Amino acid sequence: MGDLTLTTFDWVPEMPRGYVRDLRVRWALEESGLPYRVESVPFRDRKPEHFAHQPFGQVPWLTDGDISIFESGAILLHLGNRSDALMPADPRGRAEVLEWLFAALNSVEAASLPWSILIFSGITGDAPAYGLMNSFLKDHRLKHMEPVLAGREWLAGTFSVADILMADVLRLIDRFDGLAGYPACRDYVARATARPSFAKAHADQMAHFAAAD
Amino acid sequence: MGDLTLTTFDWVPEMPRGYVRDLRVRWALEESGLPYRVESVPFRDRKPEHFAHQPFGQVPWLTDGDISIFESGAILLHLGNRSDALMPADPRGRAEVLEWLFAALNSVEAASLPWSILIFSGITGDAPAYGLMNSFLKDHRLKHMEPVLAGREWLAGTFSVADILMADVLRLIDRFDGLAGYPACRDYVARATARPSFAKAHADQMAHFAAAD
Repeated sequence: MGDLTLTTFDWVPEMPRGYVRDLRVRWALEESGLPYRVESVPFRDRKPEHFAHQPFGQVPWLTDGDISIFESGAILLHLGNRSDALMPADPRGRAEVLEWLFAALNSVEAASLPWSILIFSGITGDAPAYGLMNSFLKDHRLKHMEPVLAGREWLAGTFSVADILMADVLRLIDRFDGLAGYPACRDYVARATARPSFAKAHADQMAHFAAAD
Repeated sequence: MGDLTLTTFDWVPEMPRGYVRDLRVRWALEESGLPYRVESVPFRDRKPEHFAHQPFGQVPWLTDGDISIFESGAILLHLGNRSDALMPADPRGRAEVLEWLFAALNSVEAASLPWSILIFSGITGDAPAYGLMNSFLKDHRLKHMEPVLAGREWLAGTFSVADILMADVLRLIDRFDGLAGYPACRDYVARATARPSFAKAHADQMAHFAAAD
């Protein structure tokens, strides 16, 4: 249990601002009330020290004393173990947070990431690959998330790191208008992003990158 | 801490046999030495009770006494908390397992899943979508995994649930010949799948589905 330092890029282009994954960590840290600092690494010239902390050359990573940890899901679970505001302490509650946290990343985002990469690359409309990924995301993922989110305020009973990840994943789908037929998913994103900790995290990320322009 | 029951499909077509995700859970259970039972749900006619345990209508899920948990990553972490054979107990070791477990699922598999879906659908060769996903997987993921796996036997020092997930993800890439230029990744898969617990898990899955033919 040491001092917490979040590392992100010094600058990114306009397009990803507001969506860089340090936002997930900032959001969790704001919810927890744990004090933290933010440091930067170069976006354009990624050094060996960067790859030593994040082997794919991405961000964010977190240091907690002498422990360094990458992957937003891993960081949020690590913080969940430090704060009751992020994860319930009872075994059943923890199991629910775990399953939904992985569902956000490995079921929903695993489908939304390729879908958004295709859209971003202009492969849409009648392109067979787009049809395939659009159906994977909507018919196999969002269709099933819709009744889940229509029936509960937060995924694991109370707000948790699972909601930070699921809401952030759905938020990017919404940016590309993918939630049009899924009102409960959209309401859930609105509910999650109405939290003061999200607003603070989002404003801080925007200010961080704007300061480098 | 209750009795462990793993639920998978009663039958699947030939193609996915040996790769259905209950294998990850069987493998972890065999490594742990924890006793468990296997139950089946219909592959063809998925009931509401199935969706109550696994909201996307997939498998596997695990029950641990009165706790039910889905998502292979969540199940493996849950089991990691029950067995030192699956996850080290010290904070630094746990952080390393966490980051690599998520790297397997949210960085490597997030790139290999769309890549394999395109191949499986015949979208390969010069198709722009294939070029995009093939580069995402190889230039942004495997290229960085190669030096990591060339430099260590297991991801977090000792064998852990992170290795079960990373090896299983890389194994499916290898099936579609995607590891051709990555000998350290290939050696790692060979090393992991040479473990008796993998052989047992794989044989049990094959026998389970064959019994329903």
